[in-house]
Amino acid sequence: MTAGADLQAIRERKPLVHQITNYVVMNETANATLALGALPVMAHAPQEVEEMASVASALVLNIGTLSEHWVAAMVVAGAAANRAGAPIVLDPVGAGATTYRTVTARRLLSELEIAVVRGNAAEIATLAGREAEIRGVEAVGDAAGPELAQAAADALECVVSVTGPVDHVSDGQRVVAVANGHELLGTVSGCFLAVRQASPLEAAVEALVAFGVAGEDAARDARGPGTFHVALYDALYNLDPATLDSRAKLD
Amino acid sequence: MTAGADLQAIRERKPLVHQITNYVVMNETANATLALGALPVMAHAPQEVEEMASVASALVLNIGTLSEHWVAAMVVAGAAANRAGAPIVLDPVGAGATTYRTVTARRLLSELEIAVVRGNAAEIATLAGREAEIRGVEAVGDAAGPELAQAAADALECVVSVTGPVDHVSDGQRVVAVANGHELLGTVSGCFLAVRQASPLEAAVEALVAFGVAGEDAARDARGPGTFHVALYDALYNLDPATLDSRAKLD
Amino acid sequence: MTAGADLQAIRERKPLVHQITNYVVMNETANATLALGALPVMAHAPQEVEEMASVASALVLNIGTLSEHWVAAMVVAGAAANRAGAPIVLDPVGAGATTYRTVTARRLLSELEIAVVRGNAAEIATLAGREAEIRGVEAVGDAAGPELAQAAADALECVVSVTGPVDHVSDGQRVVAVANGHELLGTVSGCFLAVRQASPLEAAVEALVAFGVAGEDAARDARGPGTFHVALYDALYNLDPATLDSRAKLD
Repeated sequence: MTAGADLQAIRERKPLVHQITNYVVMNETANATLALGALPVMAHAPQEVEEMASVASALVLNIGTLSEHWVAAMVVAGAAANRAGAPIVLDPVGAGATTYRTVTARRLLSELEIAVVRGNAAEIATLAGREAEIRGVEAVGDAAGPELAQAAADALECVVSVTGPVDHVSDGQRVVAVANGHELLGTVSGCFLAVRQASPLEAAVEALVAFGVAGEDAARDARGPGTFHVALYDALYNLDPATLDSRAKLD
Repeated sequence: MTAGADLQAIRERKPLVHQITNYVVMNETANATLALGALPVMAHAPQEVEEMASVASALVLNIGTLSEHWVAAMVVAGAAANRAGAPIVLDPVGAGATTYRTVTARRLLSELEIAVVRGNAAEIATLAGREAEIRGVEAVGDAAGPELAQAAADALECVVSVTGPVDHVSDGQRVVAVANGHELLGTVSGCFLAVRQASPLEAAVEALVAFGVAGEDAARDARGPGTFHVALYDALYNLDPATLDSRAKLD
Repeated sequence: MTAGADLQAIRERKPLVHQITNYVVMNETANATLALGALPVMAHAPQEVEEMASVASALVLNIGTLSEHWVAAMVVAGAAANRAGAPIVLDPVGAGATTYRTVTARRLLSELEIAVVRGNAAEIATLAGREAEIRGVEAVGDAAGPELAQAAADALECVVSVTGPVDHVSDGQRVVAVANGHELLGTVSGCFLAVRQASPLEAAVEALVAFGVAGEDAARDARGPGTFHVALYDALYNLDPATLDSRAKLD
């Protein structure tokens, strides 16, 4: 387990994490990136997206609130990241909820080399070609668990992280269950990938561990979603590399 | 008073509330929706807006930071919501402040069947054809009170909620005054409408009550707008259906 | 030092501060403006941007997450603000990080009369034609200090505020160092400029003082970036005009 060492690396190297994400979470993902110790940059204009992606250490794509120009930006940025060897995280928000989101997520998976896809069971099941009942962005389906993660990783040829009550991460061969997950997770995964570019499975697991431990710390004194949210940034910022590995709850 | 029962219904049914709203409040309205127990979805692309609106239980339109494509999305989504029988809340942010906002709010009111319009006195007075002095988004005019709500409801043929020191809601015939109001109110109204589609007056009153009670709870320990804001999400989340009706301050 | 008196003026006059800014910070800048006592308005559509700018007391332009239509809106709004005599603050986020941002910042500086540019050392050095190593939005370069502020003010013919461990503000002749700075600073500068339109140097210094004092207050009990952020809005709201001047740490 090298979650602690990689957290330390994030804080020392301060990698640039390029994010093309949705309007709803943009402020939160920037703040979470900063709290972890990395540098967020949001850029989507065709005039600059390639240049920005080529200097970043990881790229996070999130298809919530997407529109035509943003999808085009994702494709261009993704190709630049691929050429530069920077790993890409895809968060297929709402895949299965509308045809446009499903088609867009599939297009990104087919045109780009994606390192990690992280989504809920319904989103992942949709992309893996498994039927799923979806209601909007939040999945209502059951926690499909390890076999979904493995089957999807196999079908999509990348690491897949299925979040739910227990999170499952697989590269198609191994499956790791982590009992600690969330909407900011795509970004946190991007930060860990930025310092562990060659090992997306490890990076995805480490992100779940770091996020889960921070969530435990934040939940301790929270009185509801408002105080939890605030405490989460504090907790990400205060994560201790020295104790992080020992707090991981792997299965 | 069925605010408590309807809050319970929101938590049990978790209705999907589709929101096409402004960049400034998008994150806050999503979090408020989740705190109440409903599921927010933000989508505005022409490729998906109709599909999303047709599966949602309510649609919230907010014209802050509007632009051409967003207005077009509102019209298409609104028509789909109307066909599906899902009620629409319109928050005419800045109507009267610029011609574009006034014209857009009027267009939405004329092309769509709107269930509830909620705004401040200046915005509502503009739409009802009454002169009002407006400075930007915050109204400076006086609290025009019950007759404005009633006259506007009559003129616009929908339920109108005028927020101010005291809030007034009217369907053109009855006027209810609630001493508990805000920018997140359009969204909260959408959540209540989602479970009480046939009674927009009741839903608008219930939203004011729920929001007002949460505001009282949040204000108790707040030291300023930062802590108030955080406490508000906690308070929405912790609203007790069993005591909600008895805490309503109706007139 | 008239920071206290100008804060009092902001609270009494509630000036309208028009902001065309980036998606990431939009919610935060609106809340900071309200916490200070001014009225924020965000508008970028070509149909309304000129009308809005012509009634506002100051205009804040921030080029983070920019795209073609937004740049066009900035130019139109800026020209309207110039005609109306409302001062403009430019926050050149990421100038130097991509060619598009550098070119856009230069274009705004050349086509508009800008009152105050506030940025970090790398952004300002880029615009002043000095070489700088930049990594994304956060500058990694050294605190170039007073001479950079002065040289940039001279080259750009406006007041320049260089933020860093110590902030330096110059109009090309005088340089003021303030030991109290941040991403919300462009907006805070806009609020002070709105009530002190003819003295951009004083307004920029006052904004640094007010923001710095609020930051000190917020840091007192913060346990990390989450609680700090929340406490910052409280602190801006609770700033005391009577003691503000005496808490300034000028050099």
